Amino acid sequence: MPLRGVPIVVTGPSGVGKGTVIAEMMRRDPGVVHSVSMTTRPARPGETEGVSYFFVDRPRFEDAIRRHELVEWAEVYGNYYGTPLAFLEENFNAGRDVVLDIDLQGASAVRAHFEDAILIYLLPPSLESLKERLVNRPRGDGDDIDLRLSEACTEMRMIGMFHYALVNDDVGRAAQAIQHIIHADRHRLQRVYPSLRENSLLGRPKV
Amino acid sequence: MPLRGVPIVVTGPSGVGKGTVIAEMMRRDPGVVHSVSMTTRPARPGETEGVSYFFVDRPRFEDAIRRHELVEWAEVYGNYYGTPLAFLEENFNAGRDVVLDIDLQGASAVRAHFEDAILIYLLPPSLESLKERLVNRPRGDGDDIDLRLSEACTEMRMIGMFHYALVNDDVGRAAQAIQHIIHADRHRLQRVYPSLRENSLLGRPKV
Repeated sequence: MPLRGVPIVVTGPSGVGKGTVIAEMMRRDPGVVHSVSMTTRPARPGETEGVSYFFVDRPRFEDAIRRHELVEWAEVYGNYYGTPLAFLEENFNAGRDVVLDIDLQGASAVRAHFEDAILIYLLPPSLESLKERLVNRPRGDGDDIDLRLSEACTEMRMIGMFHYALVNDDVGRAAQAIQHIIHADRHRLQRVYPSLRENSLLGRPKV
Repeated sequence: MPLRGVPIVVTGPSGVGKGTVIAEMMRRDPGVVHSVSMTTRPARPGETEGVSYFFVDRPRFEDAIRRHELVEWAEVYGNYYGTPLAFLEENFNAGRDVVLDIDLQGASAVRAHFEDAILIYLLPPSLESLKERLVNRPRGDGDDIDLRLSEACTEMRMIGMFHYALVNDDVGRAAQAIQHIIHADRHRLQRVYPSLRENSLLGRPKV
């Protein structure tokens, strides 16, 4: 029985650098798969169907909600985003771990859905550094820095839901820490026990 | 507040190759400390007091037992062996993780004593390979292979007490797996939370 894959949730406040850390981790560890979300947002130049996102229209997305095809979903600035269960299950069955870059509510839903989910929270080195990152990055309309910081503080107080907490003071170190977490979990007793029983090492003593 | 060290227990049946895997892991990761046992066994050529063992006489060892200075101890072939609590505490306070190469009863005692202990069980690839290793290694008097194998089978059924299980099919891979486990644990929420609170990242929202 090959080891079944698990969901690896990476969450953190807006501006913490989650995307960069995840990209670096996946560059080092090609065995890990990135979750592909379903969205009603139109594809941008360079985005590929089924790789960047599964692009669908609103009726199809709302149908997916009704049919419980999504582990978690949210509406952000008028567009739906969600995580299709089928994509995760296919990868888990093939023994691949899947990284999910999702928000706090999404993390909660994944934790509720999968008992073997690994939840990692990425923290900024300090509030000052988070503010600096938010100020310096390209801003969308209505991007209110003080509001974002206040939301970050509220969100960080939900850290008790997570299994691991990393401070993103260095992209390489944070990426490596996620690798350690992923590889350690592949030896967690409850995860390997089915395969140990199957190869009869833990069967009845007969020598 | 620097991260406090934790005990890393590595247990496995006689002949599984624990010593070799631990030595390889420590060669790669000099930040980890090996526990130094107290023993009444006489020092052998090349062994150093305080590095190989703390060598003591029986009255001193029995005194240590009475004073609860040992986390765990056992009498093997007429000699006492035990793990001094003070050695562990000193290293934990200095932020160093300590690897303990101990038997099942020792692992149980460490688990009972330290709530943040990490317990790793090292398994042979198969019973046949364990038998082969036991047959081929230098044997002491009264080393009964069938008895050892039967004991191994009984012992392996206590695997539920451990957090991680590794199959030692390759020394390098097993050593690396232990490294992953040690480094992942350094980001475990309950372990890092005190330091996160202290640097006020998770204090009351004030921006």
